[in-house]
Amino acid sequence: NMSTQKCFTKGSAAPGPVPKGSIRLYSMRFCPFAQRTRLVLNAKGIKHDIINIDLASKPEWFLMKNPLGLVPTLETPAGEVIYESAITCEYLDEAYPEKKLLPSSPFAKAQQKMLLEHFSKVVPYFYKIPAGRNKGEDVSELEAEMKEKFAKLNEFLVNKKTRFFGGDSITMIDYWMWPFFERLEVLELNNCLVNSSELKKWKDCMSEDPTVKATTHSVDTYKGFYKTYTEGKADYDYGL
Amino acid sequence: NMSTQKCFTKGSAAPGPVPKGSIRLYSMRFCPFAQRTRLVLNAKGIKHDIINIDLASKPEWFLMKNPLGLVPTLETPAGEVIYESAITCEYLDEAYPEKKLLPSSPFAKAQQKMLLEHFSKVVPYFYKIPAGRNKGEDVSELEAEMKEKFAKLNEFLVNKKTRFFGGDSITMIDYWMWPFFERLEVLELNNCLVNSSELKKWKDCMSEDPTVKATTHSVDTYKGFYKTYTEGKADYDYGL
Repeated sequence: NMSTQKCFTKGSAAPGPVPKGSIRLYSMRFCPFAQRTRLVLNAKGIKHDIINIDLASKPEWFLMKNPLGLVPTLETPAGEVIYESAITCEYLDEAYPEKKLLPSSPFAKAQQKMLLEHFSKVVPYFYKIPAGRNKGEDVSELEAEMKEKFAKLNEFLVNKKTRFFGGDSITMIDYWMWPFFERLEVLELNNCLVNSSELKKWKDCMSEDPTVKATTHSVDTYKGFYKTYTEGKADYDYGL
Repeated sequence: NMSTQKCFTKGSAAPGPVPKGSIRLYSMRFCPFAQRTRLVLNAKGIKHDIINIDLASKPEWFLMKNPLGLVPTLETPAGEVIYESAITCEYLDEAYPEKKLLPSSPFAKAQQKMLLEHFSKVVPYFYKIPAGRNKGEDVSELEAEMKEKFAKLNEFLVNKKTRFFGGDSITMIDYWMWPFFERLEVLELNNCLVNSSELKKWKDCMSEDPTVKATTHSVDTYKGFYKTYTEGKADYDYGL
């Protein structure tokens, strides 16, 4: 039922309790961090419902559950609340041990987390470059830095000689990075991939993944949303 | 042999390979992040050696192992390299499964990681307040904020009704937070605990822990080191 996707706003009535045997995700349809959790829920086939939150005007009952008001936030039928995107993903991978997304080897798992740390230093560029352009600033230096950072990720894949970041099939680290790459086109950052052919191949492979397809929006929908976001009146229900 | 604690500097010969059955920590004797890893190595009784690094002038062979040049960095006999303090601690807890420091329940583990996230927002105050004072700035607002943040941690303990942050015995989260509290006195930040009596009790209990005692320095040694650090010529071998 698409209409249930509309976001809950300040003053709205709280949704019912989380059904037994299910888990709830508080999300926002266009949030790349919440998308990490949506990817994991989908990839692992975990029964869940999603409550979208109006991030500009958060429901009181949501702030009672998570005073930080962050998405993604998970809630279990027992009322346990989990937030921070990487923590929610790892929680799901452990609480639902079928179809593991993180490797079982302690070192391989640590490698994925170190790569996430590296990637966390790339994430700000996805915000700074479009924001700078909107203000008419010269972003060529930021673009050069982002190209450099993409080249490092590319080098990682070249050295690892695998299709994905954890091996020849998709694992957690790929889902942790993906939401940002999905937005390259709408953010007009595709040019930063110019010297990173393996990374570009990774992006093409990822975009064919059924889980990725299930959590994405069309480029037009993204563009429409980002327009409202850029204009300072984000429409979290854009396209519904 | 205390002399082996002296830090390795640029131009120094590389230490020998990591012995089989052991693990190596690249550290700095006064680094609170590296102390997290030292606490875990000690608490779990893991056989290890420690190579201290001159952070002002890092050995070339160290930068080959970890181009970021960060401490703590772990190295296994197989040449696997792990860094970022929380990642090193979790790696050790998984690779050496006796005497687990993180809970096995996915939710309890997620709680410790969420608490670490909160605490990460307190860490900058341990640097900003002393730096501000050294510059003769008014730090009363920063101190008020730190008191507020400590009060939140205090409230967590009051609500949890346990002696430590994960329960009635010491677990990982306590060791993750401890190194900063150990430095309250030398940083002259003890006054920020004024309204946080449970947190103060926690600090007193922690200071009695044998693992904490094994990784600490005397207040005089800390003071001596911080004096050199503040003067811009940090003596990483202070007290040896």
